[in-house]
Amino acid sequence: MTRLAVTEKIIATKVAQDIKWADVAKKVGLSKEWVTAACLGQMTLDKNQAFIIADIFGLSEEEAKWLTVTPYKGSLLTSVPTDPLIYRFYELVNVYGTTFKELIHEEFGDGIMSAIDFKMDLQRQPDPNGDRVSIALSGKFLPYKQY
Amino acid sequence: MTRLAVTEKIIATKVAQDIKWADVAKKVGLSKEWVTAACLGQMTLDKNQAFIIADIFGLSEEEAKWLTVTPYKGSLLTSVPTDPLIYRFYELVNVYGTTFKELIHEEFGDGIMSAIDFKMDLQRQPDPNGDRVSIALSGKFLPYKQY
Amino acid sequence: MTRLAVTEKIIATKVAQDIKWADVAKKVGLSKEWVTAACLGQMTLDKNQAFIIADIFGLSEEEAKWLTVTPYKGSLLTSVPTDPLIYRFYELVNVYGTTFKELIHEEFGDGIMSAIDFKMDLQRQPDPNGDRVSIALSGKFLPYKQY
Amino acid sequence: MTRLAVTEKIIATKVAQDIKWADVAKKVGLSKEWVTAACLGQMTLDKNQAFIIADIFGLSEEEAKWLTVTPYKGSLLTSVPTDPLIYRFYELVNVYGTTFKELIHEEFGDGIMSAIDFKMDLQRQPDPNGDRVSIALSGKFLPYKQY
Amino acid sequence: MTRLAVTEKIIATKVAQDIKWADVAKKVGLSKEWVTAACLGQMTLDKNQAFIIADIFGLSEEEAKWLTVTPYKGSLLTSVPTDPLIYRFYELVNVYGTTFKELIHEEFGDGIMSAIDFKMDLQRQPDPNGDRVSIALSGKFLPYKQY
Amino acid sequence: MTRLAVTEKIIATKVAQDIKWADVAKKVGLSKEWVTAACLGQMTLDKNQAFIIADIFGLSEEEAKWLTVTPYKGSLLTSVPTDPLIYRFYELVNVYGTTFKELIHEEFGDGIMSAIDFKMDLQRQPDPNGDRVSIALSGKFLPYKQY
Amino acid sequence: MTRLAVTEKIIATKVAQDIKWADVAKKVGLSKEWVTAACLGQMTLDKNQAFIIADIFGLSEEEAKWLTVTPYKGSLLTSVPTDPLIYRFYELVNVYGTTFKELIHEEFGDGIMSAIDFKMDLQRQPDPNGDRVSIALSGKFLPYKQY
Amino acid sequence: MTRLAVTEKIIATKVAQDIKWADVAKKVGLSKEWVTAACLGQMTLDKNQAFIIADIFGLSEEEAKWLTVTPYKGSLLTSVPTDPLIYRFYELVNVYGTTFKELIHEEFGDGIMSAIDFKMDLQRQPDPNGDRVSIALSGKFLPYKQY
Amino acid sequence: MTRLAVTEKIIATKVAQDIKWADVAKKVGLSKEWVTAACLGQMTLDKNQAFIIADIFGLSEEEAKWLTVTPYKGSLLTSVPTDPLIYRFYELVNVYGTTFKELIHEEFGDGIMSAIDFKMDLQRQPDPNGDRVSIALSGKFLPYKQY
Amino acid sequence: MTRLAVTEKIIATKVAQDIKWADVAKKVGLSKEWVTAACLGQMTLDKNQAFIIADIFGLSEEEAKWLTVTPYKGSLLTSVPTDPLIYRFYELVNVYGTTFKELIHEEFGDGIMSAIDFKMDLQRQPDPNGDRVSIALSGKFLPYKQY
Repeated sequence: MTRLAVTEKIIATKVAQDIKWADVAKKVGLSKEWVTAACLGQMTLDKNQAFIIADIFGLSEEEAKWLTVTPYKGSLLTSVPTDPLIYRFYELVNVYGTTFKELIHEEFGDGIMSAIDFKMDLQRQPDPNGDRVSIALSGKFLPYKQY
Repeated sequence: MTRLAVTEKIIATKVAQDIKWADVAKKVGLSKEWVTAACLGQMTLDKNQAFIIADIFGLSEEEAKWLTVTPYKGSLLTSVPTDPLIYRFYELVNVYGTTFKELIHEEFGDGIMSAIDFKMDLQRQPDPNGDRVSIALSGKFLPYKQY
Repeated sequence: MTRLAVTEKIIATKVAQDIKWADVAKKVGLSKEWVTAACLGQMTLDKNQAFIIADIFGLSEEEAKWLTVTPYKGSLLTSVPTDPLIYRFYELVNVYGTTFKELIHEEFGDGIMSAIDFKMDLQRQPDPNGDRVSIALSGKFLPYKQY
Repeated sequence: MTRLAVTEKIIATKVAQDIKWADVAKKVGLSKEWVTAACLGQMTLDKNQAFIIADIFGLSEEEAKWLTVTPYKGSLLTSVPTDPLIYRFYELVNVYGTTFKELIHEEFGDGIMSAIDFKMDLQRQPDPNGDRVSIALSGKFLPYKQY
Repeated sequence: MTRLAVTEKIIATKVAQDIKWADVAKKVGLSKEWVTAACLGQMTLDKNQAFIIADIFGLSEEEAKWLTVTPYKGSLLTSVPTDPLIYRFYELVNVYGTTFKELIHEEFGDGIMSAIDFKMDLQRQPDPNGDRVSIALSGKFLPYKQY
Repeated sequence: MTRLAVTEKIIATKVAQDIKWADVAKKVGLSKEWVTAACLGQMTLDKNQAFIIADIFGLSEEEAKWLTVTPYKGSLLTSVPTDPLIYRFYELVNVYGTTFKELIHEEFGDGIMSAIDFKMDLQRQPDPNGDRVSIALSGKFLPYKQY
Repeated sequence: MTRLAVTEKIIATKVAQDIKWADVAKKVGLSKEWVTAACLGQMTLDKNQAFIIADIFGLSEEEAKWLTVTPYKGSLLTSVPTDPLIYRFYELVNVYGTTFKELIHEEFGDGIMSAIDFKMDLQRQPDPNGDRVSIALSGKFLPYKQY
Repeated sequence: MTRLAVTEKIIATKVAQDIKWADVAKKVGLSKEWVTAACLGQMTLDKNQAFIIADIFGLSEEEAKWLTVTPYKGSLLTSVPTDPLIYRFYELVNVYGTTFKELIHEEFGDGIMSAIDFKMDLQRQPDPNGDRVSIALSGKFLPYKQY
Repeated sequence: MTRLAVTEKIIATKVAQDIKWADVAKKVGLSKEWVTAACLGQMTLDKNQAFIIADIFGLSEEEAKWLTVTPYKGSLLTSVPTDPLIYRFYELVNVYGTTFKELIHEEFGDGIMSAIDFKMDLQRQPDPNGDRVSIALSGKFLPYKQY
Repeated sequence: MTRLAVTEKIIATKVAQDIKWADVAKKVGLSKEWVTAACLGQMTLDKNQAFIIADIFGLSEEEAKWLTVTPYKGSLLTSVPTDPLIYRFYELVNVYGTTFKELIHEEFGDGIMSAIDFKMDLQRQPDPNGDRVSIALSGKFLPYKQY
């Protein structure tokens, strides 16, 4: 058994039983972004959270344990994603990457925005010209320190 | 002469004269995100905007014209960026890419978040545990339509 | 079970029973281009359409549900396709890509032709020198807007 | 001197003098698609056409001769294009590639759509929901023959 | 079932029963080059030919049908082949590619040698210094035409 | 100075003075295939041959010497060629590679067709359905020997 | 002028004048690891430090300014380094990467060792069997937090 | 049976039975770094050590034997690792690679730090600003010798 | 059944029964280098040799036949090998490749060292400073001939 | 100035003045293999050796100093070499890599053949069937030690 097998079982059960990520997140008591990432094999749950997931998706105890093990992360099949939705995010990094870099350095100096001490919130933003996807990212700035 | 040469001249002048992107943006009258991207060779300016930029960075008339020509976009040197700051954004796409996909489809159905009808706002978010980089992304949802 | 498994079952049934995509499309009531793409795991059907497909290809209810789930898109095995027919389209992008770019920007300004708000129609064009493949592409122009 | 140098000179002159591809094509007496591709170093002109181009862009006789030499074709900098406009065409090949293949084989049998005996026409298609880019492709079908 | 599975069954049977491609070709009534390529999953047979192949290799009716379906072509596992025999052909393209290009253009103008309207004949050429492999390639020249 | 610089000078002179490879080959007294490959930086000439080439293309003595030095071979810019004419040869290796392998092994046993003890002859083959490119390849078979 | 040009000037001066990194570091008053990385274009210095460096290597004021600008980081020419010394570090990541992962997660839970809040110390470790390179790495552990 | 199958069985058992690498190492009597690497298929154990491992993880005798066979090493799925923890080590090599090279050559001359005659020790370093991961690497310096 | 399956069976049996390649080679009556390569799926055996191998490793008659079929050669999983032992050989090619080229051309003129008409002998070379691996390579020089 | 510039000057002078590597090596008093590698930018010379090289090739004092600086090693332009002579060595690693691995481990246990404590000798081996290239490699075996 591998984490991948648990992920695939969760997804197949979700399709078969019309489960929604937002509902799963409510039962777990965390944001939908974190819970979805955990179910997709990218984040680590504690035992209580894992049992709630196991209950929803009908996982065995051994399968539930895999959810508490830190996974080998990375959800793209190729270094440049082929899926159009995911590609648009890659395109933003490609087109705006140096802009992110210039503006963060102008504001904060040399360092990075953490992808670990990080959270995000994805919402539907109603708009008469067509609803928009609104994503708020928040990551701690980590400065390079001299030594 | 190429657009790349104009971009490099802008950057070298910025270093030599301690120009700030935020100040450039104010003079142009647009967001700092858009103006920085344009100066870095990723976006297209109109003639008036180009002349303001030319004035700030000491560009010739021919160089200013290049800013009004749609560039071949893409600011990464390699498909996976080596710079740690830019890499963190790539990592977010890599780790959270399938999460973005699941949650947007759950909310909107099949389609994408536009990277064209798109805007973003990057701010410093004061925090007692260390200030944070806050980025708000907003892109129009574009549904696949059947035909 | 995965979407790939459903796609492979559809293709195997098509071979075994000599089913034609044009006939499938007629029964579904959509264009043959869209329906074929959906059967090949690239587009999303609604429940009624999925049941029609299920009926034609002998799919179970769970398999039919997979057709209503937005798939991870991308149908090429390698970033440069090896199949000669598909490669010719890649070659067109490679040889004519900058021409597309110049002419669309000359006519519309900076922006893209949408690949989402998009449709196409593929027809046989009789010709005494050998029949031709005629493909009409139509995509909404999406302008970059300043902010 | 290389063909690339001639191409770059044509583009720089175009920017400096606000030349339009459609006007160049009219003077040459061929479609704007073909002429643009030739000016961008992808196609071969005859001597008369080359002299017209040379006249428009101020090329020397030696530079004009390069336009009559078959170039090493390929206008993408990377196998997957980074420019969003050109990428969308790559995405169409990626998402619809197997659909093109299925439908052309269903109609014609085994073979390809020629990318050589090929022409295209790119037009603006007015639309109340936003104008569209309309591209008509026409390529001769070439069947594999047994031997 | 997939075409790959049929190809593997044909090869395994060939090994187990010491079948020769030249004999298969004689029974089918086509060249050994074409028939071998078809058995290896690269070309398409008609029904009669498929039944002859099925008879030789003990294929079921459904397996035989797969031989009549246009396959996704491409027989190399990697873009640069690792097998020494196949690599030598790749090396010829790599070393002589620009020579092919120069000489064909010198003789024919801009265009290509078709890989579709194409045939080849591979023979043993006795030679006192060691027998030689002799391969005659013949492909229709396809000119680019202006439009 | 490098071999590449000599190659580029030869090509530029060829364009400027309308020199034909077939004529160069006649003056050197070797096949047009070999001589073109040598001028393109893939083969090595002896001193007399180099002086003939130098005379035709106006090379200095030092430039001529470079033609007698074994070059770093390889004329493709990318591992998969983008130029349509050269790509078709790559496609033949890709589609027919395993066929070459099977038929050569069936006839000769384990070993390769040499790409070193090799010659080729490229001719125009008149044909009422359109002239053909005819290429005869002849390479010594080199068997693997046990030890 | 670019940062790369400044880096190359520093290195060329170092070779021409037999400057040692350890001496440069002493004058700057920071560790040799940080100072070397900064001189090689990977880290950012403040103005005072930059002037010390400029004094040592004979840089102009504009060149010194480049040392205070956050560079695009990444010092490898290829994603897998070819230099044997640097490759050995890559090999350690390749062979021991999953071991690092297991042991850090076992001790700390899910998270990473920071490469930003990080320092290192490289020393010669005398050893009768041959001196050893001793490297002490210290990076803050950053836990993933749920939200 | 392959070494990979043994590795996967060890990992699955570890998850199912909450085994800790540090405990396994104590029973084997070697460092936790070496033992973990061996269990993950990167190092070779002797028979006694293999039997201890087999006892802990419930391996058969044949499975135990695989632990004594030198494995094909390399634990990364891609040349650039996608997992954030492992990537940080790759980033260190990327950013500090040339610094490692300069400082080791300055101290030792031309040669490498061995990745074979090598050991490491990974410890938790308590720190009021957040605990740190401390890794001490020690590799023999191997000089290039002239011959 | 495929050649790969036969190779894996041979390796698994070797591990389970502590068979040594040197002993296998003695029974077959060929060098250990050739026999090991053949057992690893890189070379072709005749029927008698295959039966000896089959006897040692308990192969069926059909499995033995696969050893007499020329395999698709290439034993590396990636174009740059990750295994440290095999990588060192790749490193030698990378560091010394141009040296091999210069010295062989200086001695022999343009051509190659055959990798087909080739043999090698690998021996332990006792040395008080640590035993050495000694490998003698011998390949026929194949000159390029003009035509 | 960079090491590459020095290497190119050495090579250009060698071509212009018909210098032989074997003669250079004799003057330096080291093997031709080592000296050629050093001149090609792969190895490091001491000051006396560098002055001898500088004298032969007419290098300035600053250029000579570059020969005493450890270079960034790696002489291949691509990870798989395109030059046929160098490729044959890569092919040997590809085809025989796992054989090297098996036989060295069988004789020595887990470890590697050093590519640093390494020497080689390349000789012409007269043979009535065509002279052979004979290469003797000798590298110290470095065992992995447990800790």
